[in-house]
Amino acid sequence: MTFDYVGRRARLAELLPAREVHALLVTSPVNVRYLTGLASSNAAVLVRADGTALLATDNRYIEAARLLDVPSVEAYEVADKLTENLTGPGVGIEAAWMSVATYRRLGEGLVPLEPVVELLRAVKDDGELELLRTACDITDQAFADISEKIAPGITERDLARLLDNRMTELGADKPAFDTIVAAGENGAIPHHAPTGRELRAGDLVTMDFGARYQGYHADMTRTVCLGAPAGWQREIYDLVAEAQRAGRHALTPGAGAREVDAAARTVIEDAGHGSHFRHGLGHGVGLQIHEEPFLGPSRTGRLEDRVPITVEPGVYLPGRGGVRIEDTLVTREGGPELFTKTTKELLVL
Amino acid sequence: MTFDYVGRRARLAELLPAREVHALLVTSPVNVRYLTGLASSNAAVLVRADGTALLATDNRYIEAARLLDVPSVEAYEVADKLTENLTGPGVGIEAAWMSVATYRRLGEGLVPLEPVVELLRAVKDDGELELLRTACDITDQAFADISEKIAPGITERDLARLLDNRMTELGADKPAFDTIVAAGENGAIPHHAPTGRELRAGDLVTMDFGARYQGYHADMTRTVCLGAPAGWQREIYDLVAEAQRAGRHALTPGAGAREVDAAARTVIEDAGHGSHFRHGLGHGVGLQIHEEPFLGPSRTGRLEDRVPITVEPGVYLPGRGGVRIEDTLVTREGGPELFTKTTKELLVL
Repeated sequence: MTFDYVGRRARLAELLPAREVHALLVTSPVNVRYLTGLASSNAAVLVRADGTALLATDNRYIEAARLLDVPSVEAYEVADKLTENLTGPGVGIEAAWMSVATYRRLGEGLVPLEPVVELLRAVKDDGELELLRTACDITDQAFADISEKIAPGITERDLARLLDNRMTELGADKPAFDTIVAAGENGAIPHHAPTGRELRAGDLVTMDFGARYQGYHADMTRTVCLGAPAGWQREIYDLVAEAQRAGRHALTPGAGAREVDAAARTVIEDAGHGSHFRHGLGHGVGLQIHEEPFLGPSRTGRLEDRVPITVEPGVYLPGRGGVRIEDTLVTREGGPELFTKTTKELLVL
Repeated sequence: MTFDYVGRRARLAELLPAREVHALLVTSPVNVRYLTGLASSNAAVLVRADGTALLATDNRYIEAARLLDVPSVEAYEVADKLTENLTGPGVGIEAAWMSVATYRRLGEGLVPLEPVVELLRAVKDDGELELLRTACDITDQAFADISEKIAPGITERDLARLLDNRMTELGADKPAFDTIVAAGENGAIPHHAPTGRELRAGDLVTMDFGARYQGYHADMTRTVCLGAPAGWQREIYDLVAEAQRAGRHALTPGAGAREVDAAARTVIEDAGHGSHFRHGLGHGVGLQIHEEPFLGPSRTGRLEDRVPITVEPGVYLPGRGGVRIEDTLVTREGGPELFTKTTKELLVL
């Protein structure tokens, strides 16, 4: 998959004059990749207001850099290299990314800026959506393929491994993040790391996982029940499913990040469980697993068209268990496109 | 595995007066983990010169934090929370870690410091060495278990997956880093990412991989030959093996980082291949895959006792192929202890 890197740099260049800089020193590895195609742990690119650019990376990546449509120089201290010949003020830096140590070393002439490239990255092009769709397909398929193994006796950790291995067998680069498997009372911890606890009859089991495919990250969560659900389990499952549906339906270009969150959150609050849902409703996905935009009670901004994003409400009852249901979708005029295809009916295994 | 976190914080506290601060705001996630035991993507700890400390993390991790031997507060903006009630100057920050954006938001009263916690982390205690030994054992075992699959027809990517899956089956948290498999001409690229290229008879094949076990990272590289080696292949293999042996033998407490590098590098330079070995000789391993100390021509400092570190010279011939041999060892009085047990004889498969 190749992308229109020249076009991306041109769109970035258009944003610079309003920020009163004539160039931006991009040091976030994922932003460098987005603007040039170079995947590297040590690279930087200087993008000028006329759309030209200069890439720097070290000897491990310079051969790959030379194949790209941007001039490149070899250096280990990439930010130092790209700023050594700059004269006059007006070069922006990514303040959320650059360290204080690097900033102090490079000198005070640089202008710390709020995220810029991230604004471009939120809206995906066709090629990116195709990769994300594939990442979500792999994620769905892996869940289907291992679902008969979700049974009493297997540990959280072994179940996580089955999911991870199946995703890579199906073509994932690797898991998009550390897979969560949380059984029974552990389901009350939204970010639980899998342990040796065995699944038992009567457990709600939450699995939060996703495939990374050619750099793009899928994200999905399902909660299943081992055996017939108790009344409280069915109650919170249906509640979360209703909230998740409300959140998905609110997901349209032009909607506010806060309003989409509220659409789902009020369902849970109205049922008296507001204090049991304490994280944001969702987040953008793409070259990072968590990226702009974010959905939450204190988030600002409005959704655009073609923005892949998760919708993932949950209810967590301390000491007892929890439910979370999460899809990856993309905003579209006329209603969101669902990338995650797995059923949201309660699976009783 | 639990560690003496109180002792670690006390040792850190002793380093603060010489840096003219009465507290250090630790925001590097791995340093927070080292000092408190909390593994979190959003946490910070303020360690005071009297050895007391305050931990902050958000609602996803606060339950785990409350089980630790350090007081904790809940916040999403953890650095802001820990600095909100500070009065007067003299609070250090980790300048290599904190972003310019956070630093500007928190205010100018903070003192940017060079790495401090990293100095403590370089020297490992018994519990850490035990985890690293296990991580290296898993890595060795995974290589042994998949070695019969290293044959013509398998792709680089599939071979990488076999290694990754076997390591997790053997108990790894996950791979310690993105596994490298580089066949034939790809072996000339030190940081090659596995592709669909199939292994062929006559290839040198370099595999660089490792297990992460309970947070601790193993690192190992072997190059094998598919079929009887050609003269040039045998020549560079024997050269790298000799350089690697020289590097290992130079690895003693008190040795300079530059001298250890030179011990191996001069072997390669004397054979006329200096320009084909352009990366450092090795790096510390622990809670990170690359951490202090680093071995290289421009590195300063001396090794201490009980420092796990890699020794990994290579020779890379553009367009033809390469050889790298890497072990993880730990410095000891009387000679290094070898954690990587796999033979360094040229395996002809």
